[in-house]
Order: sequence, then C-alpha cells, then structure tokens
Amino acid sequence: MTTKPKTSSALSQRFAGVVPPLVTPLLSDGSLDLHSLERHTHHLVEAGVHGLFALGSTGEVAYLSDEQRLQVTATIVRAAAGRVPVIAGAIDLTASRVLERALPLVDLGVDAVVSTAPLYALNDRAEIEQHFRRIARGLSVPLFAYDVPVRVPTKLAPELLVELGQEGVIVGCKDSSGDDVTFRRLIALNEAAGHPLQLFTGHEVIVDAMAFVGADGVVPGLGNVDAAGYVRLWSAAARGDWATARHEQLRLNALFEIVFTSRGRSPDAAGVGSFKAAMNLLGLIDHATMATPVEPLDDQASARVRRILAGLELLAA
Amino acid sequence: MTTKPKTSSALSQRFAGVVPPLVTPLLSDGSLDLHSLERHTHHLVEAGVHGLFALGSTGEVAYLSDEQRLQVTATIVRAAAGRVPVIAGAIDLTASRVLERALPLVDLGVDAVVSTAPLYALNDRAEIEQHFRRIARGLSVPLFAYDVPVRVPTKLAPELLVELGQEGVIVGCKDSSGDDVTFRRLIALNEAAGHPLQLFTGHEVIVDAMAFVGADGVVPGLGNVDAAGYVRLWSAAARGDWATARHEQLRLNALFEIVFTSRGRSPDAAGVGSFKAAMNLLGLIDHATMATPVEPLDDQASARVRRILAGLELLAA
Amino acid sequence: MTTKPKTSSALSQRFAGVVPPLVTPLLSDGSLDLHSLERHTHHLVEAGVHGLFALGSTGEVAYLSDEQRLQVTATIVRAAAGRVPVIAGAIDLTASRVLERALPLVDLGVDAVVSTAPLYALNDRAEIEQHFRRIARGLSVPLFAYDVPVRVPTKLAPELLVELGQEGVIVGCKDSSGDDVTFRRLIALNEAAGHPLQLFTGHEVIVDAMAFVGADGVVPGLGNVDAAGYVRLWSAAARGDWATARHEQLRLNALFEIVFTSRGRSPDAAGVGSFKAAMNLLGLIDHATMATPVEPLDDQASARVRRILAGLELLAA
Amino acid sequence: MTTKPKTSSALSQRFAGVVPPLVTPLLSDGSLDLHSLERHTHHLVEAGVHGLFALGSTGEVAYLSDEQRLQVTATIVRAAAGRVPVIAGAIDLTASRVLERALPLVDLGVDAVVSTAPLYALNDRAEIEQHFRRIARGLSVPLFAYDVPVRVPTKLAPELLVELGQEGVIVGCKDSSGDDVTFRRLIALNEAAGHPLQLFTGHEVIVDAMAFVGADGVVPGLGNVDAAGYVRLWSAAARGDWATARHEQLRLNALFEIVFTSRGRSPDAAGVGSFKAAMNLLGLIDHATMATPVEPLDDQASARVRRILAGLELLAA
Repeated sequence: MTTKPKTSSALSQRFAGVVPPLVTPLLSDGSLDLHSLERHTHHLVEAGVHGLFALGSTGEVAYLSDEQRLQVTATIVRAAAGRVPVIAGAIDLTASRVLERALPLVDLGVDAVVSTAPLYALNDRAEIEQHFRRIARGLSVPLFAYDVPVRVPTKLAPELLVELGQEGVIVGCKDSSGDDVTFRRLIALNEAAGHPLQLFTGHEVIVDAMAFVGADGVVPGLGNVDAAGYVRLWSAAARGDWATARHEQLRLNALFEIVFTSRGRSPDAAGVGSFKAAMNLLGLIDHATMATPVEPLDDQASARVRRILAGLELLAA
Repeated sequence: MTTKPKTSSALSQRFAGVVPPLVTPLLSDGSLDLHSLERHTHHLVEAGVHGLFALGSTGEVAYLSDEQRLQVTATIVRAAAGRVPVIAGAIDLTASRVLERALPLVDLGVDAVVSTAPLYALNDRAEIEQHFRRIARGLSVPLFAYDVPVRVPTKLAPELLVELGQEGVIVGCKDSSGDDVTFRRLIALNEAAGHPLQLFTGHEVIVDAMAFVGADGVVPGLGNVDAAGYVRLWSAAARGDWATARHEQLRLNALFEIVFTSRGRSPDAAGVGSFKAAMNLLGLIDHATMATPVEPLDDQASARVRRILAGLELLAA
Repeated sequence: MTTKPKTSSALSQRFAGVVPPLVTPLLSDGSLDLHSLERHTHHLVEAGVHGLFALGSTGEVAYLSDEQRLQVTATIVRAAAGRVPVIAGAIDLTASRVLERALPLVDLGVDAVVSTAPLYALNDRAEIEQHFRRIARGLSVPLFAYDVPVRVPTKLAPELLVELGQEGVIVGCKDSSGDDVTFRRLIALNEAAGHPLQLFTGHEVIVDAMAFVGADGVVPGLGNVDAAGYVRLWSAAARGDWATARHEQLRLNALFEIVFTSRGRSPDAAGVGSFKAAMNLLGLIDHATMATPVEPLDDQASARVRRILAGLELLAA
Repeated sequence: MTTKPKTSSALSQRFAGVVPPLVTPLLSDGSLDLHSLERHTHHLVEAGVHGLFALGSTGEVAYLSDEQRLQVTATIVRAAAGRVPVIAGAIDLTASRVLERALPLVDLGVDAVVSTAPLYALNDRAEIEQHFRRIARGLSVPLFAYDVPVRVPTKLAPELLVELGQEGVIVGCKDSSGDDVTFRRLIALNEAAGHPLQLFTGHEVIVDAMAFVGADGVVPGLGNVDAAGYVRLWSAAARGDWATARHEQLRLNALFEIVFTSRGRSPDAAGVGSFKAAMNLLGLIDHATMATPVEPLDDQASARVRRILAGLELLAA
C-alpha cells in the first residue's frame, strides 16, 4: 500500500497518538502512592507514549478530593518533565465548577484540560454548547471534550463538536461513547471542516480499526498495563501496516480479557481494578488498592489475571 | 374519620412537613442576589414552612461554585435564625468529595446534609452503601439520602435505604424518583422497621396522596412560589382532612402548569426557570436570572406564567 | 367527610372499578388449561369484580400463539356470560397487525380492545397518534390505550391521550407507566376536557391513593390472587371511606410481597410466576406452569409464597 | 500485504458478504408494489450481492400484516430463483409466535430465518437462550439471531451467541447494536470457538473497518440505493485491499448523509424514508410511499436527497 495514511500527518500534531489515562496508585491505607505514580509516569514516557492523560475515569478522578487531584497532577507533570504533553481531566458538574477544578491544574503546568458535558444538571444542546464556551473562555490552555455517555447524561453530537472545533472552543475530543458509527461520522465531518479537532478513541480494543478510519489517537486504559504494545500498534498503523497493527491489537485484546475476570462487580471495580491488579503483578505499582468505596479484585479474580498475563508471556507462568 | 393519621405524629419529628428547596436568586449579571435570598427565606419561614432545603436541584446547586454555595448557605442559615431546621445539599461525585463540600456547610450551622448516590463513578449496591457510610462517618450532623435517578445513575432500593436507616447512617430520604409505587413500599418497609427514616416526597403535585399513604414531609419546588398553599395542604393532611388537602393540591397543581409554559426547553430551564419567573412576577425575588448557561424564560412563556398566576388570583389580571 | 367523591359517579360508567387482568392457566405440558380458566373467570365475577381484562401482560399474552389467544378469549367471554364487560389485549407491533389480532377477538364478543403504542417500530408522536386512529377506525368496539413503557419504547403523553379521547379514538387508558405524577396530570387534563377517558391504574399497590386522586378503576394483577380484597378496597374508596380503603390496601400490599420472593429472576418469572404459585396454593388454578421459556417459581420461593399467604390467613399455616 | 485475510475464506460460506435488507415498495395507496419489488430483487442480484434479507427493519416488517409478509417473501424468493440465498425475518414477540410467522416463510422457500430476542416479554438470559432454542427446534432451516437493542429490550451478550452457535442453535448473527467494541469481542470469541457463527454487521458506514476486524458480511440498508458500491467495497476487503475498501466506504458514507435530511422526524421515517426517496429518484422503485402511519420525506428533504445523489454523480444534476 503506497498511499500515505492520513494518520501519519496527524502524528505531527502536538496532541496525537497514544495517550494513556494514568491509574492513580494508592497505598494500602488508601492514601496516594506518589512514588509509584512517579515511577509509572517515567515508565510510560520511556515506553514511547505520545502524551499522558491525568485524572481520567481510569485515574479514579471521581473518587479523588480536590487536594489529591492536585498532588496527582503535580507528580505527573514533574515526572513527565516536558517530554510529552500532559492533559488533565477537570471533572465537575458545570462550567463554573469545572473552572474551579481546572485553573489550579493549569497553574501546575498541564498542557490541556479535558471536560465532559454537564453532570447532574439537565441541559439541552444550546446550554451544552455554552457550557464548553464558558470553560474555554476561562482557560489559558486548550480544551478537549470528553464524550462519555455511560457516566454523563448526554451524548455529544458530532455536529456540535465540529462546530465548537471550528470556533476554536475545543481542540479535540476523547470518544468513549461506545458508538463507533457516530465516531466515524465525526471523523468525516471534522475532515470536511478542515480537521479542527484531534479525535481520540477511548476504546482500547479497536484502535487498529479506528486508526484505519482516521482517528488521531487513542486513550487506552489498558495502556497502563502494556504501553509498549499500544506504541507498536500505533506505529504500525501510522505507517499503514494494517496487518501488523491488527496482529498487535489481537494480542492486546487477549490481554484486555482481564477486565472480565470479575463478572458481577461494578464497572469501576472490574475495569480499573483489573488494570491495577495486573500492574501490581507486573511490578509497575506497589499496591492494587482501589479508591474507597471500591474493593480491589479478590484472590480468585487476581489469579485469573495472573493466568492471562502468563498466557501472554508478560509474566513468568 | 376518627383514626389519628400516622402523619400527625411524624410532624413532631424535627425533620418533617413542608421543607421547600430554595431557589438561588441571581442579579442580572449572574452573581448572587443575597438580599432577595434573605427576603425569601424570611418569607418562607413566616409562611409556616417546617424546614428549609438549601442547595438542592431547584437551588441550581449544580451551577454554583464552592464559594457561592457557602454564601447561599450562610445567608439562609442566618435568616432562618434557628426558627426552622436548615438542610443543605452536598452534591458531588463521591464520598470524599461530598465531605469536602459538606464540612464547610456544617461549620456554617446547617442542621443536616443531603447527598445522592455517586455521580460519574459506576458503582454497585455494596459500593453505594459504603458511599453513604463513609459520608455519615465524616459528619457531625444527620445525613439524608436524595434519590433522584433522573440526575444520578442509580435508583436507591428501598431495602438499602431502610437498612442504612436502621444502622443510623441516614435519618431520612428525599424521593424524587418519580416512582411512587416503590415509595409506597419504602414507607411500608420503613414502618415495619420502626420508622428509622423520615421520608419526603419531592413530587409537589401528589403531596395529598403521599401524605395519605404515610409520607413524613414534602420538598416542593413549587413551594417557592406558593409556600402558604403547601402549609395549608400539609396541615389539612396532618389532621386527616383529606378533602381539604386534595382541594388545596388541585389548586397548586393548576399553578404547577407554569412548568409546561416552555416546552422544548431543557428540564432545568423549564422547571426552575418558571419558578423564578413566577417569583419575580409576585415580587418574591428581584430578577428571574438563571445560572449560566441557562437562559431565563422568554417573554412569551413569561406571559403564560403571568396568565396562570392571574387565573389563580395570585396576581392581579 | 360529606362531599361525594368523583369516583362514585365513575362507577356508573360501563368500564370502571376493579378489572383484573386474568392469568392464563396452563397444564403441566404447557398447553392451555381452559377448565381452570373458566373456573377462575366465574370466581372473579362472583367476587364482584367490575370487568375482566383478557390477554394482558399478566395473561402472558406475549407468549401465546394466535390460536391460543382465541381460545383464552372465547373461554373468558363464555364464562363471563355478559355479567361484566370483557376487555381484551390485541398486542402486536403496529396498527395493521393489531387489527389482525383484534378483529377475531371482537368476533368472539369482547366489549373493548386494548392496544399499546407501536412495538419494534420507531415512531414519533404524530405517527403514534395515527397508529391509534387507524386501529380505532378498524374496530366496531371501543379502544383503550395501554401505557406500559417498561415493555414498549414509548411513554404516552397525557396531552396525546386526552386529545385522542376528545376525538373519540380511545375511551380510556390503562396506566402501567409507574409514573403517578404524570397520571395525576392525566386525570386533571381529562377532567378539564369533560372526562372523555376512563382512567385505570395498573399499579395494584397504590389503588387507594389513585382512587383518592380520581382514577376510574384499577387493573390489578394481584386481583387474580385476592379479588375480594380489591372489590372491598374499591367499594370503600367509592364511598369516600379512605381509612378503610387504606387499611385494605396495606393488607393487599403485604400480600404483594409474593412478587419479591424470586429476586434475581426475570420480571415475568417473578411477577406472574408468584401470582400463579399463590393461585395454585389457594386452589384457584390447577398448576403453576408458566409459558415457555419461563420457569415457574422454585420450591424455595413457593415456600415463601406459602408463608406470606399463611401469615395473612389466606391459607392454613 | 501478503497475508491472506480471514474474510476471503468466509466468502466461501453460504451466508456471507453483502446481504441487503430489501425495502418493501408500496403503491400510492399503501398496498404492496410487487412489481417494483420483483424488479428491485433482480437489480440487487445482478449487482452481485451475495444474499437477500427479506422482512428486516428496513423492509418495514413491523408494519406489514401476516398476509403482506407472505406476498413479499414469495416475490423475493421467486425473483431470486436460487441465484443467492434468501434470509427472512420472523419478527414477533416470543418463540411460539415467531414460529407462527416463520413456518409459512420456510414453506415459501427461504434459506434461513432471522429472529430477535423476545419483545414485550421481560426475560432474563436463561429465558432468552431457551427462546432461541425453541425457535430453532421448530425450524427446518438455519436460524440467525438479530441483535437490535434499539428496537428490542435486550442486547445479546457475545458469550450467549457463541454458546448458541456451538450448540448449533444459530448459524449467525446480524449485529445492529451500534456497539462495535462488543462486536469485536464477539468476533474473537467466535474465532476461538472455531467460527460456528457467520457474523454480519448491520452498520453500513463502517463495513471496511468491520471487514478488517473479521466480520463475515454486512446487511446494509443503504445497499438498496447503491448495491454495486457495497459489492465493490466487500470485494476489495475480501482481497485485503483496504485502501480501496476505505475509499469506496467514504463514498458510500457521503451517500448515507441522505438519512440526515429529515432531522426531527422519527428514525423509521428518516431512515427508510430516505432510502425509498433515493430509490424512487434513481428509478429503482415506482413510489416512495411509506407504510402507514409513517409519512414519506417531504419535498424539501427529497430535494436534499436529490442534491446528494447528484453530488455523487448517481443522478444527473
């Protein structure tokens, strides 16, 4: 295949490629484990990731106090040391509160802020547009929209996102909507508008296909466990080597089965819990502790995680 | 009817009866109108309400910054001056953050705190139980649960609520679930457990019927517009005069039609917007301004509100 | 209380009061048990019910073939023998198919037909209005709307229902929406329009309160188990004796706990399954068999049903 | 790229590749236009499609009477004349009724039957499994599962589908769930189980990517309008020429914008309505009439469809 894929030019953008949402390591007593977080940040950068996403859902942002959010961000920014951009989630109910959360993060040096549609509030489309406009006006760094209807009452329409992109309100979107049909349309509308947005998929199991259809990057929770794999995947996709990208994706998808080891548990417990369990087994963080009130994986599920890691030769059997 | 209705004994409880969720008056520029808020607080107490609910959905809590939340609460507590208890909403994503919001409110003198199930986080029942337990452990005042599945991902099961009541974790629940069938069952389970919970309906159009089936009180958004009506309604219900209660309810329901004057607008715009428009027309607050990014009712809808008020002789025609 | 309650006049209407949705008794091999059905029909009429609802959700209408639907309806119509009106559900995807189901039922002598909003089809409000208009045009007997958003994609708006009532398209509505706030508003709009509709609640645990707010009748699944209780309840409500109505309701609600004996089972299995288990224990039907693929209650749940029946002295302990 | 893609072997299967869900042409009075249907069937086969899907959502199956379903199927089977397999939807509430619909279709010569999870009934996973088992037992031709949670209350879990495939209950699945993340996992589980299922995506805008990740075919509603495009797309994908497949997909996606010409209309009106409008403009069917109660596209929307067709040179400008 000789045509140069669009995604390679996208990589030249400042925000593109593999941007893992860092887990927030905790000590056994539930307090922040900033040493593990610092070590993990170095590990990710050295693995070749293109950016870091602090305070995302995978980072248990919902469970962290304001003070903990600052400590987490300061640690990541310091450890990253400008080698890659740091994006941070300012997750709160509405624009005025998002700005209260975001401004201290900007002071700590993050390169961009991520915000969702309003929470708890019940708004229509015009109000949601104003929500993003108000946040952007209050910020001195770029704003990303985070489309995550499983956690927020609203799915962000592609027309709305592209319109906000053309106005310069947002510079990109992380799509965790599970709706790749609409994501494909978002890519097309964005392209037709001159590519104002950098578009990231949040679905780590379909990165090859989303790169193929034109995504600018990925925010893979599973990238905490196997960052190098996602870097290889993205690199193959960027050079149009789809067979290699798919091969790497299938290996990562076999690894992703760790999130199904805790059936019956809550989504946060099963998802982030399995990432932390695997990272702990791999020595990437010191504890698998989850933020209160979520319990870590039980022994049986952890054993299943271990078997999956061993089966993929990430761990000695 | 000679049997003494259960609800009359409930009125002897500290938290019971008519507890309006105060709107948050704003000046034309969107900043807090604390003078109107103080005046409105006096007005409600003088109308005979049995408690005040600060920082509820009707109070646009989702749109207020932390600092604004404190100013609103301080104003209400000072104006109430101990004449009736003040309950305040500490609405945030999870327990640790709810406590960050709640503790300053307790310092300001509120008599109880209200919290919902987790937001944004995706938890199971055991985790939600722990969420309320952790909040209660951190508080020196009683905790109410707020069941509002239209704004929060979870409907609180009656068994969970009664269990938390029996443990002393929560002292009551405000039910805005729209599910009166389950609310009836909650009342029955609560009664069977010795009435550990004070149960408030949030549905202002069915207070007569909910009092009839055993509710301990009501949190009526429309009580901002006609507090005296709700006091009369509740008083009739408390003495078992159901015909009078129903008659008053039907009058209030004709007033409630103001929320349908803005079809097509967002729920927050149509609901709280119409309360503020009516209060402004009645001289209860100085402006009908809504919190950004919500626009107030337009002229056409305001005119419809005026006609409804005039039709009920609350306003000169 | 001297005022004459509105509900007493409603009883003079042809379709009003207690109209149980008959279960469909089955033999052990899953075929129709028409002998039990005939006996049960007589039992209900003799208990004083005001009408019979054949082929409702409680009648497992979804699971019956066209031929079985005809046999069930013929049996009920014959056994009722004109003593009370028979209403029958014509549940299918859209108007043309509803008519295919309904016309043979009309030929069998049913007094009215019940239909839901479209199923499977994805329609807007104008299309749903046309759906009911087309059904009504094809029928020689009155049409009821059945509002059951847990089974059908659409909640029927009160304005739409009253408009269809005023046009003569429908003569009433069975409300199983679980949304008593909107049902209250439906009652008010219907009253303001001159009461074109007979309004039935489908929620058997809140009949006293719904009669109090002006419902014209109830379609109680639990009425299969204790028809006499619902007749007493409704009779007390009709004469404005709310204390007696509430007392009877609370007894029936204690009986309704049978539906919670099978937690974890499907709604159809837990609900209709517990009705059939109780009816079988009470000798009202010969088998508790459920329609394929639903399994009847297991022994443990049946034992719990038996204890509830015994605790209420409906069965010897 | 030298590796032979898996999808090429899938094409050797009897059910694979491009299988359009035929619209049901109607005359101006709403009756069946069997001449247009026959002509369209020939057109599709001659365009090279690999199969035909009668009585799908796009075929307005929900709106057709039993008799109309038979006439439609007979016409398609006769016109196809064995050149490609014909699959037909037997859409009804539960297994016994699905069989009532399906058996006459089998008698007419269809090669396979498609059924959804139960409708209206409220079942759990075990009951849904039994639903499919009972249908399969009653059929002499293969059964496909149709996963369409926007029309049916249940999303079919990939584990359930693969288990039913391994048992021989179903031979494939049409996925219209909009959830490509889970579809990817279904493909992986199916592969690990030895490929018991033929897996079709119902999302016509992402066929290139779904072929890339291993889908066995596509059921494209838009294939009614441009069958040749889908055949070219699939052919390119089958030989691993992803750049060509993507190029064709992007052209088809520009065509798919016809479904957005009627914003504010119901999904059935906007979707199938735009297909029929385009087909009528292209001379593929004689009328754009929709099944009652759905109105066809209005003139303004039809003009937009015409412009899109002209812009893609499918029609003279």
